[in-house]
Amino acid sequence: MADRDSLAASRFNCTVRERACYEAGIKMATIYHQFVGTPVNLSNVGSLEKSIAEAIEVQPYVKESKVIIDRSVFTENGDRYSYRSLTGEMIDAVVTIEIKNVILTSEMRYDTELGYPLMFISEIREV
Amino acid sequence: MADRDSLAASRFNCTVRERACYEAGIKMATIYHQFVGTPVNLSNVGSLEKSIAEAIEVQPYVKESKVIIDRSVFTENGDRYSYRSLTGEMIDAVVTIEIKNVILTSEMRYDTELGYPLMFISEIREV
Amino acid sequence: MADRDSLAASRFNCTVRERACYEAGIKMATIYHQFVGTPVNLSNVGSLEKSIAEAIEVQPYVKESKVIIDRSVFTENGDRYSYRSLTGEMIDAVVTIEIKNVILTSEMRYDTELGYPLMFISEIREV
Amino acid sequence: MADRDSLAASRFNCTVRERACYEAGIKMATIYHQFVGTPVNLSNVGSLEKSIAEAIEVQPYVKESKVIIDRSVFTENGDRYSYRSLTGEMIDAVVTIEIKNVILTSEMRYDTELGYPLMFISEIREV
Repeated sequence: MADRDSLAASRFNCTVRERACYEAGIKMATIYHQFVGTPVNLSNVGSLEKSIAEAIEVQPYVKESKVIIDRSVFTENGDRYSYRSLTGEMIDAVVTIEIKNVILTSEMRYDTELGYPLMFISEIREV
Repeated sequence: MADRDSLAASRFNCTVRERACYEAGIKMATIYHQFVGTPVNLSNVGSLEKSIAEAIEVQPYVKESKVIIDRSVFTENGDRYSYRSLTGEMIDAVVTIEIKNVILTSEMRYDTELGYPLMFISEIREV
Repeated sequence: MADRDSLAASRFNCTVRERACYEAGIKMATIYHQFVGTPVNLSNVGSLEKSIAEAIEVQPYVKESKVIIDRSVFTENGDRYSYRSLTGEMIDAVVTIEIKNVILTSEMRYDTELGYPLMFISEIREV
Repeated sequence: MADRDSLAASRFNCTVRERACYEAGIKMATIYHQFVGTPVNLSNVGSLEKSIAEAIEVQPYVKESKVIIDRSVFTENGDRYSYRSLTGEMIDAVVTIEIKNVILTSEMRYDTELGYPLMFISEIREV
């Protein structure tokens, strides 16, 4: 196990902190670009949130992942065409990365002031 | 409800049977092209299968959807890099379409003789 | 060559016409679910249209594929955050399928009356 | 312009160097998770490489992006079923990020020693 961790680490030309930032970016874009477009309405929003979060936790160095999809866009009593395709604007995600002594929190959500579904680093701690 | 169903139907220049075939094709390719690439191992394969099946059931005219991912590709005691990216070869799916009196079953799985993850129509019934 | 064509055909329990409908559905959903989410603005919209159309033409039984992305959504002199993620609403696609003597035309575009990016069969011909 | 740059920057709780690492990670995972699964053979590999690279250059803070897809996996005179679905193992990408005085190079390619399509940071420079 330790072998592939060390081997992968040896390819990086930066600090552990910087690598944690990089790994966080990978995870946020995986959420976005893997799942945007998925058909979703009130019937499957819970299983979609859960499966996105769990898929991200499979990726290297993810300590925890939480995904919430904005339910306000869904129609309560719609017809066959009332479902939505998942968009970045609907996603609220918080992912925690842990590499060695670095713990990093990254978030993604629609930033109303910016008018953009921003991914950002909210905290880096060394423990 | 009936309104958007009729409106959508009016755009088609074919029989209900033929439309059922078309709708089935849409669903199979949604499974493939939306979800191929998703990080998956033994820890999340169940939630991924469930969320794929439920997302497909959100699409119009899907009566039922079942998705099974081949578990034989996963490592029992792997390291951080032992997970897999979902491929078409790992997917076994059965989707039932119902439009008016037509019930259609479509399947997708790796066809070893063909060497290809084939999507096909296994049955069309009129009831 | 003929071998894999015949082998694949033998898995289908329907007419050639019905299979053409199914293959068309596969292609339309590939356009949608593979490419929705792609970053796009005026600088790359042309190469994206071209690569989507060419990727679809790689799939079995596609005679021709045309994809146009709605340029009215793009900002002429935007900043770094002014690009868009491709959505189904922005796509206008026409795909022609040819299997044996059947030639089928399928289209996808945002249907303003329906309020939905509808995929449909516009013509089936036997030649 | 400057406004949204500053506004976005104000959401980050890290250095410019660390943000450059994060932005690089986002771009690498966009390449992977947006495009893995795309149908590709010798006829469209060039337009696919070009459109991936150009789509990444649309994302914020990308100075340059190069994508090469491994042509050794393609069959010269195949049949309809001989095309491939793009996998991470086939991708070789180099992306340069520029934020303020930081220029960062990130790479992705299949690492044979690791047995994994590794994304990594190869250089960070301050100019």
